[in-house]
Amino acid sequence: MKIAVLPGDGIGIEIITEAVKVLNVLDLPLELEWADVGGKAYDNHGHPLPEATLNLAKAADAVLFGAVGDWKYDKLERQFRPEQAILGLRKGLGLFANFRPALCYPELTHASSLKPELVAGLDILIIRELTGDIYFGQPRGRRTAVDGHFPGSEEAFDTMRYSRPEIERIAHVAFQAAMKRGKKLTSVDKANVLETSQLWKDVMTEIHAQYPEVALDHMYVDNAAMQLVKAPKKLDVVVTGNMFGDILSDEAAMLTGSIGMLPSASLDKNNKGLYEPSHGSAPDIAGKGIANPLATILSAAMMLKFSLQQPDAAARIEAAVQSVLAQGLRTADIWSEGTTKVSTREMGDAVATAI
Amino acid sequence: MKIAVLPGDGIGIEIITEAVKVLNVLDLPLELEWADVGGKAYDNHGHPLPEATLNLAKAADAVLFGAVGDWKYDKLERQFRPEQAILGLRKGLGLFANFRPALCYPELTHASSLKPELVAGLDILIIRELTGDIYFGQPRGRRTAVDGHFPGSEEAFDTMRYSRPEIERIAHVAFQAAMKRGKKLTSVDKANVLETSQLWKDVMTEIHAQYPEVALDHMYVDNAAMQLVKAPKKLDVVVTGNMFGDILSDEAAMLTGSIGMLPSASLDKNNKGLYEPSHGSAPDIAGKGIANPLATILSAAMMLKFSLQQPDAAARIEAAVQSVLAQGLRTADIWSEGTTKVSTREMGDAVATAI
Ligand SMILES: CC(C)[C@H](C(=O)O)[C@@H](O)C(=O)O
Ligand SMILES: CC(C)[C@H](C(=O)O)[C@@H](O)C(=O)O
Repeated sequence: MKIAVLPGDGIGIEIITEAVKVLNVLDLPLELEWADVGGKAYDNHGHPLPEATLNLAKAADAVLFGAVGDWKYDKLERQFRPEQAILGLRKGLGLFANFRPALCYPELTHASSLKPELVAGLDILIIRELTGDIYFGQPRGRRTAVDGHFPGSEEAFDTMRYSRPEIERIAHVAFQAAMKRGKKLTSVDKANVLETSQLWKDVMTEIHAQYPEVALDHMYVDNAAMQLVKAPKKLDVVVTGNMFGDILSDEAAMLTGSIGMLPSASLDKNNKGLYEPSHGSAPDIAGKGIANPLATILSAAMMLKFSLQQPDAAARIEAAVQSVLAQGLRTADIWSEGTTKVSTREMGDAVATAI
Repeated sequence: MKIAVLPGDGIGIEIITEAVKVLNVLDLPLELEWADVGGKAYDNHGHPLPEATLNLAKAADAVLFGAVGDWKYDKLERQFRPEQAILGLRKGLGLFANFRPALCYPELTHASSLKPELVAGLDILIIRELTGDIYFGQPRGRRTAVDGHFPGSEEAFDTMRYSRPEIERIAHVAFQAAMKRGKKLTSVDKANVLETSQLWKDVMTEIHAQYPEVALDHMYVDNAAMQLVKAPKKLDVVVTGNMFGDILSDEAAMLTGSIGMLPSASLDKNNKGLYEPSHGSAPDIAGKGIANPLATILSAAMMLKFSLQQPDAAARIEAAVQSVLAQGLRTADIWSEGTTKVSTREMGDAVATAI
């Protein structure tokens, strides 16, 4: 099984190193190939997603991704900025289904901004469509306005769009995920305003007929942003488009108070996928050895489960993470009085040992 | 001073009645003219925003608005649904600047989902552009896709767009609001992905040169959704587009735990405005006399301040609301052990008496 390992920028290399350490103790026939991505790739090869990196990712069975981005690239033209690498990988690999669990670990409930009773046991799965919507819609650009409030002035524009088959395939992914969990699916849109959302809602309703056991409800995105704060535990599986999913999955992750713990998977139609922590590259703490590697380690577990058909190995990693938490080991981001503060490497070692 | 009073649907009539009661005790030369809007207007006149209502609103110095919407209109074609009234009023009156304060009252801090220390003293002002963006951008509709992932299939599309002068005018509103408060402005966009956001960010940065005393920072919308949960008190004035503002202003309102207390103003370029509570029509509790009228009463105060140049009268209302809270009077939505539960009418009476 071939894995493309793309550490990227900031804390990327530190957290990926620990995830790889954990994979190595599992003694599976894994072939790891490393490549530059993001700002690092721009520095070394003049592009955030060099062709060699994209080809490596295409040839692999799965991609293990760290994080990209650093303030020092802020002034670059958009096409050269680190985050273009992640957009390019999603598009290039056809990774249309993004799984973003928002899970509150019992030991870490206190880390949430929310009152403990509102988040204890929280377990939401946000499924975000990842290759369509206003992220990739053409046309887009700048032009002179011919109508609107100020005809004749400069304007910028983007196109939100979804085709029926794009919505259908993410709907199937979401209903199937709901079948494996609480059989409850919330589809989030803005159908009271947007044409794209109305089609989204119509197609979700149609596909629902094939999954009669699942309870489907529709929620407007503004209301979803409120319900996440008010009563997050009422949500189970949430499916939404690329733009709304970007916002809601981050809001949901932050509710748990421990975004350093949250993995993510981005899958294509054959369950080949890219796996990365939900948090970013954190350039402010890069190189200090204090980043939390658990989100990346848990992403590696998702990879074993979803793309490499190794559910047992995945379960071993997950159990090992549970056990280091139970031992009271904490990186700085999740540390609290009475627990033991450990470095990135010590945390990785502890998980490897627990396996 | 002419005020168009549009109670709308659900609890609209109950809450507007109390706001009008409060306005009446102020003994100002106000001329109130009532009209149907929303589902009520559709039932009575076949359209959610009848021309007579729009004309009344145009002729008035300000509009006091209750709320619109009810499940029973869900099956109507979009153009006849109640929420089209509010979109039509915004467009028809040129109400491009939406002020959405998210304020946490000391007496109600416990009502928040967040830990008290994170929200005590919270005072954010979200300024949302209200007549542009993907809400009104043309073209939009359904068609057969000619490119994208599934050429030949049905697709729906919308256009996000902002022109330079549209961004400039909301930037001035936001910088001026920041000058009157903490001189700190956060502009929210998604410039790492969207052309529209890049222009938004560029123009905000340009206009900033005219307000050198204000500290401006830019934040991506996904990060803003996280920061609102993580550390809301770090935000002061936030300015953003119509779509992102819809989501973030509701998220921020819900953080306070007492959305029944939060007013809003939507202003045109001459400070003529529409004033409405931040909450909705709540059809589930309509007619029960238990809705919280304070958001609407405080909206009337905003109206006196922003559109009718009556800051003293506005301050009297605000002081009266403070005083009823201090007296321990609470409608059901904000009630807690040890306080006195009152009805919609009793709350309105108490505010009127306190004045
Ligand atoms: C970096 C950025 C382009 C990206 C997105 O908006 O999708 C990120 O926020 C994410 O959610 O993975
Ligand atoms: C009813 C709806 C069209 C409206 C909006 O999206 O603007 C509402 O959510 C609001 O925020 O006032």
